[in-house]
Amino acid sequence: MTSPTDEESPRSGASSAPTCPAPWPHHERIVLGHGGGGRLTAGLVERLFRPILENPTLLTGDDSAIVEVGGRANAASELAISTDAHVVHPLVFPGGDIGRLAICGTVNDLAVVGARPLWITAAFILEEGFPTADLKRIVESMREAADEAGVTVVAGDTKVAERGKVDGLYITTTGVGTIAPGRRARATNIEAGDSVLLSGPLGDHGIAVLAARGELDFQTEIESDVAPLNGLVEAVYEAGVEVHAMRDPTRGGLAAALNELAASSGVSIVLDEEAVPARPAVRAACEMLGFDPLHVANEGKLVAFVPARDEAAALEAMRSNDYGSGACRIGRVEASPAGRVTGETGIGGLRIIDVPSGELLPRIC
Amino acid sequence: MTSPTDEESPRSGASSAPTCPAPWPHHERIVLGHGGGGRLTAGLVERLFRPILENPTLLTGDDSAIVEVGGRANAASELAISTDAHVVHPLVFPGGDIGRLAICGTVNDLAVVGARPLWITAAFILEEGFPTADLKRIVESMREAADEAGVTVVAGDTKVAERGKVDGLYITTTGVGTIAPGRRARATNIEAGDSVLLSGPLGDHGIAVLAARGELDFQTEIESDVAPLNGLVEAVYEAGVEVHAMRDPTRGGLAAALNELAASSGVSIVLDEEAVPARPAVRAACEMLGFDPLHVANEGKLVAFVPARDEAAALEAMRSNDYGSGACRIGRVEASPAGRVTGETGIGGLRIIDVPSGELLPRIC
Repeated sequence: MTSPTDEESPRSGASSAPTCPAPWPHHERIVLGHGGGGRLTAGLVERLFRPILENPTLLTGDDSAIVEVGGRANAASELAISTDAHVVHPLVFPGGDIGRLAICGTVNDLAVVGARPLWITAAFILEEGFPTADLKRIVESMREAADEAGVTVVAGDTKVAERGKVDGLYITTTGVGTIAPGRRARATNIEAGDSVLLSGPLGDHGIAVLAARGELDFQTEIESDVAPLNGLVEAVYEAGVEVHAMRDPTRGGLAAALNELAASSGVSIVLDEEAVPARPAVRAACEMLGFDPLHVANEGKLVAFVPARDEAAALEAMRSNDYGSGACRIGRVEASPAGRVTGETGIGGLRIIDVPSGELLPRIC
Repeated sequence: MTSPTDEESPRSGASSAPTCPAPWPHHERIVLGHGGGGRLTAGLVERLFRPILENPTLLTGDDSAIVEVGGRANAASELAISTDAHVVHPLVFPGGDIGRLAICGTVNDLAVVGARPLWITAAFILEEGFPTADLKRIVESMREAADEAGVTVVAGDTKVAERGKVDGLYITTTGVGTIAPGRRARATNIEAGDSVLLSGPLGDHGIAVLAARGELDFQTEIESDVAPLNGLVEAVYEAGVEVHAMRDPTRGGLAAALNELAASSGVSIVLDEEAVPARPAVRAACEMLGFDPLHVANEGKLVAFVPARDEAAALEAMRSNDYGSGACRIGRVEASPAGRVTGETGIGGLRIIDVPSGELLPRIC
């Protein structure tokens, strides 16, 4: 990610006036929630990282930084750059492993700003005593995911820390991609009247990882959705759709992604809650655990904001791709209240959809 | 780094015939030495990472991957990309901290292929309970180093693992830079007749970190040399020097760097051992610990290979920069035996200078 959010936090009141900046909570020490992708992560970024590292590129709310090679005169050489540390536990889970996750997570962060992902770097922090055969399988999984996504791992690094100073293996991937002229999918470009599209059911990754940890009381066949989404994104562009914004809703779930986007674009997002897809097994697990599927992490889902006139073409394009076969419209964008995300239920009810405040599922990605 | 080495290991014999590929040792489990930057790291790369991830870009022996934006027709848009995970212990040491190290390490990997470092990403893996004030100081240190180097931190990520699963804080930085046309400093471009130049005394970083760990029996005032070297590199290019290859000799020390370069270029490097500078305090520490200063890590030194005709201009340019005031000629390049690094002593002696085989100083960077 570039920045988890630059939102002004919407409060759960009825006022449509701009709300006050969130009182980012201060902590003397890092807590697990600082890594959760919700309000605590945003607070750490806003209170600590951003004031110190502040620069115009870092100040965007997109999943990739966007830079220009050779100055602004040459729009053809716009690059996207994104980085993610991966600390998922366990390292292998139904549907994937940390290797596939590390490639796909970075590919997707590039794809959602309209970039063509090209080059990936991978830095490994290994625990002394980690089985070499396990490392080999994980690197093979990275290769397979990279081949599927059409990206090349161009550089790497390997460090080792003493037993007990790493939980097996952490992988940080960084990606670089080129952005074709005219592609302007940005967190700030959502407009009132846009349709909100989702590529498929929510929560598979989060629930699959939880199940792999043995934290569910029942068996589930849910597999992580971890997948590279650059082909899906290309299909949408090839259909001639004017994409205003995209995001892959990972940690913090769809709720965190929508709140960040609503704040960045200064719009209101209204979800049709009954239209938001999730598998019955995911819903059952969420019910048992007290989770909202909107807060559960995905690693292979795309949310896209397109003008209403392009909705049908975008859905058709998404459904033509293996990773978008379950694509559907899940909501609309309104002008105000700015920064607000609400959910409409079938019986006319409304609720504020907020960001998870802390760490719902530690080390989910 | 891109790859610690693609050397064919020179053996300690007198033959000048090409030597056999090294019998990279196989380990069932990761050992600390796999992170040391010496023979074990090279073995892990050659046996495990390279066969799986193999592609033309990864196959170079340089500190950065070099890619082309917009195809090979447009030489003006050649990019360098490099990544490094930083796990140094302790996080703060005389002369620097993990933040300065993370910026400088990546800046230097870009600079030594002749790139202008521009954009840096930083991914933090934090330990639950890590003091926020310490994190702030480290991020401030990153900002200072970035400002000094003229690079921008454009993207970041923050993950948190449970207490005991990280040793405080690990930082992975990735850098992207542009390479001006005509700059061809590469591991493969060293020629017989080249002069070997070093920007200053060896071993400051390694000994400073060891002292900070309380592992020396005596007090030392040695500070880490951690510094961004892109200004020093620019000074050499501005002097019109035809640079054949450069390297910043970090973990594994100058010995590892020279062995990798000798192997990549298929040349023999002959060091004038009495000309290799090291501070008396570093020499004293090395003597006590049984280390060779050639094996100790540096984080602010440049070794450069230039044609003999450019030696004087290169040394003058290096000395004009704060980080090159101690620049001197330390050796020469001969055609054979390919891949061999030898040291000449004043009394006519010769010794093979080999790569440290395992982990000399764990978690030095």
